[in-house]
Amino acid sequence: MAPVKKGILERLNAGEVVIGDGGFVFALEKRGYVKAGPWTPEATVQYPDAVRQLQREFLRARSNVMQTFTFYASDDKLENRGNNLKLTGAQINEAACDLAREVANEGDALVAGGVSQTPSYLSCKSETEVRAIFKKQLDVFVRKNVDFLIAEYFEHVEEAEWAVQVLKTSGKPVAASLCIGPKGDMHGVSPGECAVRLVKAGAQIVGVNCHFDPMTCVETVKLMKEGVEKAGLKAHYMVQPLAFHTPDCNCQGFIDLPEFPFGLEPRILTRWDMHKYAREAYNAGIRFIGGCCGFEAYHIRAIAEELAPERGFLPSASEKHGSWGAGLEMHTKPWVRARARRDYWENLKPASGRPQCPSMSVPDSWGVTKGHADLMQQKEATSKEELEQLFDKSKTH
Amino acid sequence: MAPVKKGILERLNAGEVVIGDGGFVFALEKRGYVKAGPWTPEATVQYPDAVRQLQREFLRARSNVMQTFTFYASDDKLENRGNNLKLTGAQINEAACDLAREVANEGDALVAGGVSQTPSYLSCKSETEVRAIFKKQLDVFVRKNVDFLIAEYFEHVEEAEWAVQVLKTSGKPVAASLCIGPKGDMHGVSPGECAVRLVKAGAQIVGVNCHFDPMTCVETVKLMKEGVEKAGLKAHYMVQPLAFHTPDCNCQGFIDLPEFPFGLEPRILTRWDMHKYAREAYNAGIRFIGGCCGFEAYHIRAIAEELAPERGFLPSASEKHGSWGAGLEMHTKPWVRARARRDYWENLKPASGRPQCPSMSVPDSWGVTKGHADLMQQKEATSKEELEQLFDKSKTH
Amino acid sequence: MAPVKKGILERLNAGEVVIGDGGFVFALEKRGYVKAGPWTPEATVQYPDAVRQLQREFLRARSNVMQTFTFYASDDKLENRGNNLKLTGAQINEAACDLAREVANEGDALVAGGVSQTPSYLSCKSETEVRAIFKKQLDVFVRKNVDFLIAEYFEHVEEAEWAVQVLKTSGKPVAASLCIGPKGDMHGVSPGECAVRLVKAGAQIVGVNCHFDPMTCVETVKLMKEGVEKAGLKAHYMVQPLAFHTPDCNCQGFIDLPEFPFGLEPRILTRWDMHKYAREAYNAGIRFIGGCCGFEAYHIRAIAEELAPERGFLPSASEKHGSWGAGLEMHTKPWVRARARRDYWENLKPASGRPQCPSMSVPDSWGVTKGHADLMQQKEATSKEELEQLFDKSKTH
Amino acid sequence: MAPVKKGILERLNAGEVVIGDGGFVFALEKRGYVKAGPWTPEATVQYPDAVRQLQREFLRARSNVMQTFTFYASDDKLENRGNNLKLTGAQINEAACDLAREVANEGDALVAGGVSQTPSYLSCKSETEVRAIFKKQLDVFVRKNVDFLIAEYFEHVEEAEWAVQVLKTSGKPVAASLCIGPKGDMHGVSPGECAVRLVKAGAQIVGVNCHFDPMTCVETVKLMKEGVEKAGLKAHYMVQPLAFHTPDCNCQGFIDLPEFPFGLEPRILTRWDMHKYAREAYNAGIRFIGGCCGFEAYHIRAIAEELAPERGFLPSASEKHGSWGAGLEMHTKPWVRARARRDYWENLKPASGRPQCPSMSVPDSWGVTKGHADLMQQKEATSKEELEQLFDKSKTH
Repeated sequence: MAPVKKGILERLNAGEVVIGDGGFVFALEKRGYVKAGPWTPEATVQYPDAVRQLQREFLRARSNVMQTFTFYASDDKLENRGNNLKLTGAQINEAACDLAREVANEGDALVAGGVSQTPSYLSCKSETEVRAIFKKQLDVFVRKNVDFLIAEYFEHVEEAEWAVQVLKTSGKPVAASLCIGPKGDMHGVSPGECAVRLVKAGAQIVGVNCHFDPMTCVETVKLMKEGVEKAGLKAHYMVQPLAFHTPDCNCQGFIDLPEFPFGLEPRILTRWDMHKYAREAYNAGIRFIGGCCGFEAYHIRAIAEELAPERGFLPSASEKHGSWGAGLEMHTKPWVRARARRDYWENLKPASGRPQCPSMSVPDSWGVTKGHADLMQQKEATSKEELEQLFDKSKTH
Repeated sequence: MAPVKKGILERLNAGEVVIGDGGFVFALEKRGYVKAGPWTPEATVQYPDAVRQLQREFLRARSNVMQTFTFYASDDKLENRGNNLKLTGAQINEAACDLAREVANEGDALVAGGVSQTPSYLSCKSETEVRAIFKKQLDVFVRKNVDFLIAEYFEHVEEAEWAVQVLKTSGKPVAASLCIGPKGDMHGVSPGECAVRLVKAGAQIVGVNCHFDPMTCVETVKLMKEGVEKAGLKAHYMVQPLAFHTPDCNCQGFIDLPEFPFGLEPRILTRWDMHKYAREAYNAGIRFIGGCCGFEAYHIRAIAEELAPERGFLPSASEKHGSWGAGLEMHTKPWVRARARRDYWENLKPASGRPQCPSMSVPDSWGVTKGHADLMQQKEATSKEELEQLFDKSKTH
Repeated sequence: MAPVKKGILERLNAGEVVIGDGGFVFALEKRGYVKAGPWTPEATVQYPDAVRQLQREFLRARSNVMQTFTFYASDDKLENRGNNLKLTGAQINEAACDLAREVANEGDALVAGGVSQTPSYLSCKSETEVRAIFKKQLDVFVRKNVDFLIAEYFEHVEEAEWAVQVLKTSGKPVAASLCIGPKGDMHGVSPGECAVRLVKAGAQIVGVNCHFDPMTCVETVKLMKEGVEKAGLKAHYMVQPLAFHTPDCNCQGFIDLPEFPFGLEPRILTRWDMHKYAREAYNAGIRFIGGCCGFEAYHIRAIAEELAPERGFLPSASEKHGSWGAGLEMHTKPWVRARARRDYWENLKPASGRPQCPSMSVPDSWGVTKGHADLMQQKEATSKEELEQLFDKSKTH
Repeated sequence: MAPVKKGILERLNAGEVVIGDGGFVFALEKRGYVKAGPWTPEATVQYPDAVRQLQREFLRARSNVMQTFTFYASDDKLENRGNNLKLTGAQINEAACDLAREVANEGDALVAGGVSQTPSYLSCKSETEVRAIFKKQLDVFVRKNVDFLIAEYFEHVEEAEWAVQVLKTSGKPVAASLCIGPKGDMHGVSPGECAVRLVKAGAQIVGVNCHFDPMTCVETVKLMKEGVEKAGLKAHYMVQPLAFHTPDCNCQGFIDLPEFPFGLEPRILTRWDMHKYAREAYNAGIRFIGGCCGFEAYHIRAIAEELAPERGFLPSASEKHGSWGAGLEMHTKPWVRARARRDYWENLKPASGRPQCPSMSVPDSWGVTKGHADLMQQKEATSKEELEQLFDKSKTH
């Protein structure tokens, strides 16, 4: 049995750096276990070895948080996203909890049960219905006794508030994370105001995840912190950004970039970009620092290496990684060995090898806005028929 | 027990497409199990689960070849590359064979035992000594009864010839793959001449791997094929390129790019680039089509999807992947659903999101050539002392 | 003798489009008649043929305004900028007026006498001294009877107000144009507030020139217009931007880009960019539309061609230019002839042919801010000694 | 009267550097006096002031050669290119000679009469007819007593040979310049073979002009020099490249780039690029060094400044230009003054300010080759009807 670990709030209250894990859906999509489009986590039941291995990689990179792979695992989402495996939401959520716990027990990590935005909210179901959806997932998390809870990937602060309120009923610590940028949520509520509302709803940790690149996310959390402090409230802060450069996206985030989701490769951050991100987040007073889509184990390792002085230890994975490229001192070519130094990698401006490609894109919905704004206003489909209908409609444009 | 499978030559003689696997060292480096610089495969013993999982991903993407993870696993290499685990070469090679066989048995794949270039050759040891190195690895492959053998990643055709000759003594089919581009090997022997020499040495399959991007590699194999045909010989052809765009590298390949090995992200090929590569390779008459550094499972899956009409089936991994983005028909945003079509992805010119970076680099050794050409001529160090000495020397420049 | 022409205010009051001229200092620097660094206009006396020819090109492109080439022609500027020709300010200003009048008489153009910011203000001379500087130039303009006056290229609205007040004493119409972006003047006064102050000082036309690209300048003038309208005032609006793309500059404008002033070529706008600019400016309600540094005759022609429907005529220079590339119908290559159409040029994303260059730079003063902010605060030198002293100082950094 | 000047051959034989002038058609197109598409030089009669001014700028930049502005001024070209001014070829050619002579007399420059490729050749007229075309232009040059002759801008060496033979009958020195790259002329005759044929035809100076960027042109002239020397012949060498970067064009040169001719701005060379070109050309043994399309006076000045040590003097235009940015020592901002040094400009990688544009294009005719190769084979139209017919045809594709 694992020894009793310090809880998430104890750690944050003590000023410790808590490193989150990376992104599951993107990494497992590349490995062949998650389908882009629905993005649902049936793999927890179907391919537990693959999920466990990914989770172990993050642990080895010294994540302190093993998030249950329960993204988009609410019943309403699973139903209308081609879940033809006849797996129940409970089965998927339970398997996710077991996997997270198994790996967390192998190191100094906590298990965080996660809920995310629901089709029910987006299709204007009642508050009662939406809360019931979160409650169903929460029941599993309570039964499996996760260490704390995260309401993440919400575009609308209102839905996130509901989620926080439901999760709070468990008595466990609750973190709340929106997928917004500096311009605020989809109704234009500013980051500061969003954060205040989430804290008032009961979240002890607030922040953002996904949709934007690290620097943009840190910027957004700074705005949240300002809002919370101005309101005379207190909170801890978290950030779990994309591992993609997105200087060119609008308020919808990377979803709107023409490269989403199958052409994002040239935007992937290097490990050195991650050093800068980790330092920037730390300097902004954020102490729960992790990643979302695009983050792989070596990105998390880079955060852990950058913050090793603050934490007092290197990640286990550094066994196979020299700091700032030091491993290259063993390379066979002298001019590659000459790259085994910090200033080389810090100052490198990596080329894309794609001379016929631009460096920035125009987000899709800019065009959409002009031509068919109605499409952008559409709520999410809640049945297969509705989806097909929408799709047919969009194709005629 | 697995049924008896068709051998590599039977498949190629029958005109079948054989899909190779992807790159181990780069993928496992990112996951935390291989150290960049030495690049040696102690993980087969240390972290068998991690190696097995990667191999399974390639199998699921429908690779027909499970290469033993024995790259740089010759005794001379292991010795001078910080193998402080006191693992013998035999242990590492044996574990690699077991893992490859275990996964191969789960599907329609063969096990290929692999040898690669040695420090002994590069430091001008005698032909006898170099052959002995290969023989030691071969002994393991014979004992473990791999299905065929690959001599790969050779910069000098002479060393590759020796390797082929040693491997041939086993009676198993032998493939030979150089890490060269259209300008030929490090002594300027042309691809056509290299191929002729390898065929004459006994290789039934010849081609290239690593060091260059897919289109450059296909171009190089075409030159090999021309050479073999002009010489009135016969062979099968293989290609296992990088998954990085390298239009700007010189004859040394991606090693010389300033981004090697920790800043290559913007160069990573998309799955759609892989469709083009697979078609181009097929059209060039190449039938053993795989990948090397940078190739992950989704890249191999893309090859398998492109060549599904020729092979008659989709890869298992396509269970979680709609062809040409079809999975996006299930996406919640209408304008993302509009991307669920082939011409969208075929014509996309993906942006890097890095406006302060160039699109092409100047290879390092160009500068080296002018200033300190002596460094470039240096042979590989064969002892730790020698290495440190070289490194000190290079740092003074 | 030329017939009596409609004045600038009559034209603008009637809703006519008034097209300004292009940039003198950059064009004449390339032709060999102005020195980059001092940027002073001794050429009006030294090389009148060269100045006249440039002015004629703008007229032929259908500019309605011939600005006197009197930029930086105040006595205090001429003195400390290496005017070793012993030309007086009056000589230079008079010659400029004569050239502008000569060319204006050849077509439908007015002569505008121009003053710009002074070293006296920047080095904190008294208001009286600064006003005296403007008065000296104004005396020439009154003597030469220019049609109206422009106070342009001011970084500080306060100095521009003084200039406007001095110019107003002539009884002639006065335009005021700052070299600021959306963030306002160097003391952070917003564009809207700047515009209100300039209108209150007596300017009938307000706007911006230089320092930023066309779209940024139009954006800034929109903010000015909003400010003026919110204040219940009335004005006409003018815009005379750079012909360089500057998406990456900070509040100091293109001066801070590392390419300034000798590496700006890749940023030069095409004629098609100018069509978009002209339309955007027109749609924003701006009716005095011209150019500054980088604008050559073909850029002005493009504005005139875009706004030909509104003006009712094409420029004379269109004799040698088919609209939207129509002249290519006469090209010898069929595939070049196929480019003779609007949508081809409107949608072209022109390549730089510079794969080793980035698409965006980091402005210089960002680095300066961190390291030696004191340098940025320095006022302009007013004597040769002071200049040398400053330069020595800056070199030690 | 001007003193008797050293002839072109005397200068080259003495090892002097002879600097050519820049491009007339592109510069005058931008100024409003030449129409892109036909590119014919009626301006010599219509707008002599504009032509003279441009020529003076080149002289001031220290060109030693004033080329008559007689590009495409053969009768057959003028006839089918919309010469609706009813100017005869003789009138245009004569006016060009007078202008060149007038300016040449103002400095140390020679007048070179120029002929270029003809529609008659391209439409397969007889050799006799083609020679007669050249003879007509030559008659003017002889009558106007130009100093030497240049046959330039030939895509087919055969036609250039005929031109050289005709020009030789005058007894004046003859230079021959093809618009080809390293792959040779449009029939695939190599640069070396082209040069040998031109020398044998009687040219004393051979080289290339237009179609490719400076480095490519220098490379091509090197191949010519090798050919001539291998054949045991002797010649002087000239190079007059584009002032556009064209790393991405095919054998047809910049005509095939999608940006030709109205979107080439981002490709324009800086003055610092010209320093490198001038040095490279000089080092290659080329002594007649000038420019073609895109070259403006400041580009020629940069050549003259780079080769000032070899020539022994700076150009007159350097009166208004500090070497390597020295003029910036007078700039008002300290951090701009810090740019007044050679290594700053030599190492600058100028950004395009166009993040949505690529750095390289795909030449048009690559697409053409696949789709409608017939179009590419077409000869040049020789009548207006023929042209319209071709154009209609190309539009249907």
